[in-house]
Amino acid sequence: MSREALRLVCSALVLAGGLLALSAGGCAAGPGRSFGAASSAAPLASWNAGGTRDSIESFVARVTDPNGPDFVPEAERVAVFDNDGTLWAEQPVYVQLAFAIDRVKALAPSNPAWRETEPFASVLRDDVRGLAAQGEAAVAKIVSVTHAGMTPDEFRVIVNAWIETARHPKTGLRYDEMVYRPMVELLGYLRSNGFRTFIVSGGGVDFMRAFAERVYGVPPEQVIGSVGGLRLETRDGVPTLVKQPTLDFVDDKEGKPIAIERSIGRRPIMAFGNSDGDLAMLAWTTAGSGPRFAAIVHHTDAEREWAYDRASHVGRLDAALDAARERGWTLIDMKRDWSSVLSPSRK
Amino acid sequence: MSREALRLVCSALVLAGGLLALSAGGCAAGPGRSFGAASSAAPLASWNAGGTRDSIESFVARVTDPNGPDFVPEAERVAVFDNDGTLWAEQPVYVQLAFAIDRVKALAPSNPAWRETEPFASVLRDDVRGLAAQGEAAVAKIVSVTHAGMTPDEFRVIVNAWIETARHPKTGLRYDEMVYRPMVELLGYLRSNGFRTFIVSGGGVDFMRAFAERVYGVPPEQVIGSVGGLRLETRDGVPTLVKQPTLDFVDDKEGKPIAIERSIGRRPIMAFGNSDGDLAMLAWTTAGSGPRFAAIVHHTDAEREWAYDRASHVGRLDAALDAARERGWTLIDMKRDWSSVLSPSRK
Repeated sequence: MSREALRLVCSALVLAGGLLALSAGGCAAGPGRSFGAASSAAPLASWNAGGTRDSIESFVARVTDPNGPDFVPEAERVAVFDNDGTLWAEQPVYVQLAFAIDRVKALAPSNPAWRETEPFASVLRDDVRGLAAQGEAAVAKIVSVTHAGMTPDEFRVIVNAWIETARHPKTGLRYDEMVYRPMVELLGYLRSNGFRTFIVSGGGVDFMRAFAERVYGVPPEQVIGSVGGLRLETRDGVPTLVKQPTLDFVDDKEGKPIAIERSIGRRPIMAFGNSDGDLAMLAWTTAGSGPRFAAIVHHTDAEREWAYDRASHVGRLDAALDAARERGWTLIDMKRDWSSVLSPSRK
Repeated sequence: MSREALRLVCSALVLAGGLLALSAGGCAAGPGRSFGAASSAAPLASWNAGGTRDSIESFVARVTDPNGPDFVPEAERVAVFDNDGTLWAEQPVYVQLAFAIDRVKALAPSNPAWRETEPFASVLRDDVRGLAAQGEAAVAKIVSVTHAGMTPDEFRVIVNAWIETARHPKTGLRYDEMVYRPMVELLGYLRSNGFRTFIVSGGGVDFMRAFAERVYGVPPEQVIGSVGGLRLETRDGVPTLVKQPTLDFVDDKEGKPIAIERSIGRRPIMAFGNSDGDLAMLAWTTAGSGPRFAAIVHHTDAEREWAYDRASHVGRLDAALDAARERGWTLIDMKRDWSSVLSPSRK
């Protein structure tokens, strides 16, 4: 299982060679610091008027009208969101991989042998192409070493300390400023209409829980992600959960509906994703009876973010784009539908 | 993994030969239909006045007093409950095993070969001793066959249909009348004080979700249990989750704190169990900083329920009983502390 798990973490983290995109540069232009013109008092202020916003609002109106035929009780108003590329940016590489690389550098002084040992040596030389050439197992090694040996609480402290200092290579923003303002507004809008909002992401659950409540308003018990090993050890006589360098479950593709069923035990009525990794979640959500809503964040804005879909190494959107058009799912066109994109801090 | 998993399901379901207790009869007397004398308007009406009830009420008062030093915000008021032997009776065998045995009988007409094939043949002959003699793998076979091949929704319909007709062998009650009224009151009392109540049990999560909301007021997303395999299949062109005859995770012993961390991402502040399978959960809960509360339901009432602890085949309470006394955990003495025990329907 462990070897298969390592293979899977690579698939989840790297997909088809996302690492190479790091060295290739990836996108043409960084995002501008565009603030929505609309008042932030409006619930979806960063969404332009039009079909996409209308489709969201009319669905919410239908399922919350207690006298309408499509009314859904609050307990069943579950909305699920992918994270990378749906709630925050995923270019040029997944944020969690950037974190793992930085952690290798931070831990290098305590691990002098790493200078001579692959895959660490490539990371410490900033030789991302050399790292990628070593394949998925090399990336898995880096992730597992940097994500194990501490309690989940200790790990979350490390992640948040990293967020305080790390900057996105293209925009210079903090990673928690690389979240999509319209999607944060959408999360709040749904919650104010009696929904519970869940994150369902290929990212590690402990990594996301470090910031999900602060950044998205999503509490830890509503964060579903890939799951590493945990072991109950006795430290100084105290039972302590310690993260292990294994991966027990990859929350991607078919794993997403499986994880939702296991964790929530209800089929969502709304689902949001941005890549083929979300296709199974969107298809399963909309296969339920009664009113269902699926939407895909389509990265169409090379000026304010990135423009990519079928050919991208990170967040490839191909089969799911076809499915959206065939099945009438909502396509969120970032360039057309969003009046602002990112959430830089207001100074 | 599959072989190990099967071994584990046996451990979880049968423990040290619980099956034998089925044929041996187990207990001296069935429970009486005792109704609490106290008004049901009082939140803990079926709890006798005294130290145990006081300890629960004073803890809740401490953590809910916004001006006190031990105040805990509502989001962190997580209480976890074992199910078998803590919320409902587990003698003479776990209810889920009784269900699996009845399912073999119900499915036998469609599986004529079972009359000649072990372990089914023993079940169909009501030869429980013969079944037990075949070991844990035989029980695992029965559980896996009866718990797979359908969607979780379809399975829950089967479970609820069974609950409508099955009767407890000693009391003649429905199994959902074999729940402990004082514990149901406690669940409601905690929720009315801003707690969220979770079930954390070795039982299968789909089995418990079939009735947990109706019987305990615990919604599906707050039921944590052992987890069987799930596969996303396409049935008539529709993506469908189908239960598999494998076991992916056993939520018992060290598995309980692991499952809590994974599912909730918060350490509970209250934990309730009744057996050594709950020891790790209680120890980990109380190892957290700030106010923590752990209690063990001690089966001391041979008249109204069963009296068992260190020597029992089902729900053995040995190391955890020592731990409770050493660490000052609350022991709930069923005979002394509860004015009524079970919850037979009022006709």
